[in-house]
Order: sequence, then C-alpha cells, then structure tokens
Amino acid sequence: MTISLHEASVGVFVPYLRNLSALLDHAQAHADARRIDPDVLLGMRLAPNMYSLRQQVGEANRHVILSCALLAGCVPLAFADATPDIAELKARIAATIDFAQGVPPPAIDAAADKEVVFTFRSGATRPFTGKSLILTFSVPQFFFHIATAYDILRHAGVALVKKDFLGPPREA
Amino acid sequence: MTISLHEASVGVFVPYLRNLSALLDHAQAHADARRIDPDVLLGMRLAPNMYSLRQQVGEANRHVILSCALLAGCVPLAFADATPDIAELKARIAATIDFAQGVPPPAIDAAADKEVVFTFRSGATRPFTGKSLILTFSVPQFFFHIATAYDILRHAGVALVKKDFLGPPREA
Repeated sequence: MTISLHEASVGVFVPYLRNLSALLDHAQAHADARRIDPDVLLGMRLAPNMYSLRQQVGEANRHVILSCALLAGCVPLAFADATPDIAELKARIAATIDFAQGVPPPAIDAAADKEVVFTFRSGATRPFTGKSLILTFSVPQFFFHIATAYDILRHAGVALVKKDFLGPPREA
Repeated sequence: MTISLHEASVGVFVPYLRNLSALLDHAQAHADARRIDPDVLLGMRLAPNMYSLRQQVGEANRHVILSCALLAGCVPLAFADATPDIAELKARIAATIDFAQGVPPPAIDAAADKEVVFTFRSGATRPFTGKSLILTFSVPQFFFHIATAYDILRHAGVALVKKDFLGPPREA
C-alpha cells in the first residue's frame, strides 16, 4: 500500500494546524495569567532577522494554502493585509483548514507528476512536480514554522510539552 | 501516482540529515571564527526544560533509526553512551544515513499496514501502523528536532538562512 498525495499533504497539514491553533490558546492563557500583552508574545522571535511568532503562524498557513492551490490548480485563499491578533490568527488557521479540506482530494492526488512553480516572496520562482513540492519543500517548510512557533513560545516561558506539538494520537 | 512509504520516510530523512550535518559545519565555523568552545554551542537550549542542540541532533537520528527499524523489522543502530562533540555528531549522522539507506526499500514499502509499537524514553508505548508512524509521528518529530537545532543556532547568532534548513533543490 502506498500513500496518496492528499494523505501526505492535507492529511498532515490539518491535524498540525489544529495543534498550532491550540498552541495559541496556551499563549493566550499564559498572557492572561501573567497579565502580559498577547501582542508582545506574537512579536517575539528567536533572532532579530527571523520571523516573529505572528509571522511563523502566517507562514504555516501560507505553505498549506499555496501548496494546495498549486496542486489542485485553484485560486489560493488570501487574507487581508492587517496585523492579526491571537483571535484573528486562530480564525485564519480555521479558514486555512476549511480551504485545505475543500480542495477535492482527487485533484491533489492527480498532481503527483504535474509541474508546478512556487513563487517566493522575493519574486524568485522554483519549479517542482506535485510530489517533489510536498516531500521536499511544502511539508518541511510547514513543520519548520510550526516547530519554530512552538520554540518561540517555549523560549518565552509558556508551559508546553512535546505532546502540544504532536497533538492527540490519530490514524494517518 | 502515489508516494511509497520509502519515499515518504528514507527519501525525506536522508537529505534533511545531510542538511543537519551542514548546519553543524556552520556551527563549527562560527565557533572557530569567534573563538567559542563548540561545546558551549552544543549545550545551548531554548528553555531550561528543552533538549540541548546536542540532544536535538541525537533525537533527529533516533527517530530515523527507530522508524526504519520498526518498519523493516531489523535491529536499530545504536550509539555509545558518550557525549558527542561536533565531529562525533557528524559521524553519527553519517552512520544514520548509511543505516537508513541500507534498509531494503521493499521492506519499508511493505509495512504501510503493519502494526508497529513505538517505545518512548519513559517506557510508555504507542501502537501505530507503518503509515501512521511515518505521517503522524516520525516525520513530524524528525522535522521538529531539525528545525529546533536550526533555531538554537540562529538564536546563538550563527549566520544561517532558510536555505540551510531546506538544502539544495532536488527531486522527490
């Protein structure tokens, strides 16, 4: 038995997006308990030239949206050019989950050998096949930003355990 | 076209292990240039109750070795119970790559529905199928530890860019 492209993309993205949303609940609870402005947490970063927590969440959503749109050949979901607070970040994660789940699985599964072109923020482009996009780029990028969001919160003193990254046990 | 279990596991692990090894080269060069004891870098962590850089590298290797051994039903590679320096960490990454590449791909591909049991350091166990092990646990854990190793180095001031996490473009 093999793995479908949909299982390896949407099937991985959605549960970890839910975990990311739950990490933001921990951030909110931590801020409430310590009377910290949540905006301070969202602005934290591990190095001056790395993305903030707010941006890490945005990048996780972005890689899900762009890879699903590229694979299925549909218009990517876009968010307003505003600075989201925790509630808005959670709403964007929920919208990203809805978008990913709304893409027809057969459209993604059919894209394994399809040529797709990813456009970076710089405007630079890189060609992929659907399969190489998922295995070598989008899933690694996705986990990079989720893990770094988790790392920023741990560094900020939020009481998380590894299970908060992994989420509840589930079938593939 | 679908993705084989081997492509989704060894095919992902090996290039990112190479990237991790290259991150350690950057750490060594940084330590040399600033006359920092490399052991200080290897002992850094993002929170007092998180693993150090040295341990993050060890965990990345461990998840590769244990998942490949569980899937293929072979004896996992084991390392001496010593405190590795950068050269030894790089040697262990190279040995992990050799181990992963030495597992017969058909043995991994045949394990999608196989029941496997992962044993945590605590002694607790969790049952998986081969496919759920890879998609929901081992690959996410692997990327968690690679991204966190990268994050520790960025936080320590080592001049890395995202490409150092992603590695060179490649086919899936």
